[in-house]
Amino acid sequence: MKSLQIKNLHKRPIGVFDSGIGGLTVARALFEILPNENIIYLGDTARLPYGTKSKETVILYSIECLKFLLSKKVKMIVVACNTASSFAVPFLQKITKIPVIGVLIPGSEAAVNMTKNNKIGLIGTLGTVKSLSYKKAIIRLNKKAEVFSQACSLFVQLAEDGWTDNKIAELTAKEYLTDISKKGIDTMILGCTHYPILKNTISKVIGKNIKLIDSGEETAKKVNIILQEKKLLNTQKKKGEHRFFVTDFPNNFHQIAERFLGKKIHNVKQVKL
Amino acid sequence: MKSLQIKNLHKRPIGVFDSGIGGLTVARALFEILPNENIIYLGDTARLPYGTKSKETVILYSIECLKFLLSKKVKMIVVACNTASSFAVPFLQKITKIPVIGVLIPGSEAAVNMTKNNKIGLIGTLGTVKSLSYKKAIIRLNKKAEVFSQACSLFVQLAEDGWTDNKIAELTAKEYLTDISKKGIDTMILGCTHYPILKNTISKVIGKNIKLIDSGEETAKKVNIILQEKKLLNTQKKKGEHRFFVTDFPNNFHQIAERFLGKKIHNVKQVKL
Repeated sequence: MKSLQIKNLHKRPIGVFDSGIGGLTVARALFEILPNENIIYLGDTARLPYGTKSKETVILYSIECLKFLLSKKVKMIVVACNTASSFAVPFLQKITKIPVIGVLIPGSEAAVNMTKNNKIGLIGTLGTVKSLSYKKAIIRLNKKAEVFSQACSLFVQLAEDGWTDNKIAELTAKEYLTDISKKGIDTMILGCTHYPILKNTISKVIGKNIKLIDSGEETAKKVNIILQEKKLLNTQKKKGEHRFFVTDFPNNFHQIAERFLGKKIHNVKQVKL
Repeated sequence: MKSLQIKNLHKRPIGVFDSGIGGLTVARALFEILPNENIIYLGDTARLPYGTKSKETVILYSIECLKFLLSKKVKMIVVACNTASSFAVPFLQKITKIPVIGVLIPGSEAAVNMTKNNKIGLIGTLGTVKSLSYKKAIIRLNKKAEVFSQACSLFVQLAEDGWTDNKIAELTAKEYLTDISKKGIDTMILGCTHYPILKNTISKVIGKNIKLIDSGEETAKKVNIILQEKKLLNTQKKKGEHRFFVTDFPNNFHQIAERFLGKKIHNVKQVKL
């Protein structure tokens, strides 16, 4: 592979992009699993959310995000947005030779490995659910699998506002999840990067017998495997550097980011795509 | 004024723009008050919402919307988005000689005329509330007025999903509005074009003694006055034509638009700004 011939390629950062905030749950998992990697995060906050927008628009925006990260000389790109993963990854992989990975395949693989009865639930944005991309990915991995899905539009705003454990979050979760939890599923994919923030409430509503798959966590594990295979792990001893770029003014980004990452962040810069 | 010299200027359409869907409540009021006017509506659905974005970004997007409507040869422009009205109207007025009116001033004037005790509430998006633009506009009109404001982030999604009268809407309204309704206000501005959809629930929570001002309705009345003053009313006998443009694929637009307008729409076309 051409890109492997570049000297010191392994020292380059990993590029991560999302429509805005949610991808930070994926970044968090990457920070934990790969503490020595330098990571560049791009949140397209001037155009968020992607989850309600059309396939064509999401592909266009994703290509612009990819190009920005390529200009920063990254060694790998993680599409930390379920909607962009559902619509755009195959297009992005044609543009560059470095590995591009979305959250869709790792999440689907984990669900197929986890389920015992082949009944899998999927919750996500309207875009992700309507795309049927999780369903198709899961069926490709296991022809016997049945997938039941549900869009949960309000979860994103609840997560961003920090309304994650109150009565409103619980009632909203009940409204969305009561039907799907009665389908006999034993596994459910959190198919939107905001949803891990609501994990406790979701679990409370659907019951402990249904195992939750966090696509972001699974993706971070997969990134580790790919970097190992390609001998691209950063071997530095010191902690990796984390830089954040956003397309809108970073006013509220710091505050919400702290909730999603569990730590304060600096190094946030506004860019135009 | 130069623009008045154009022949048959009064036959031209009124241009209305919004970040996406919410401005349809303003369009609806315009359709009712000015049934013979041709109206062109532009919803920037590829980049909605504006309410969570920065002043700079909202101004940039608003200028692009204005330019599109100018290319359609409109006789007047209505900024049917509270966030864009708060941030961008003075900039837009410098770009064109035709009248540009936002929802901010008509809403503020109506509140000042309505209040008996000079205590006015304002609810809106985070962008609108943080801009303090309603507060400043109200104080300019009445130095004795006190303004109490509250951002209600979740209301937009609730309105779009049609969750307007259920338990979740009521609890959410209680969470946001209990404090502000105890400030002694006798008037409250619905400072986001989505909020009229939740009028019943809002009124139930804050009580009938607090009068609600629908900025969209007030703006439609103001448009009528301006067109009369400038002798720009369309004198045609037939019903006006209504055309809709959106920046994203119009997939869900029809469905949500029907809820906001109370009628089915056709004539929806996608455009690039």
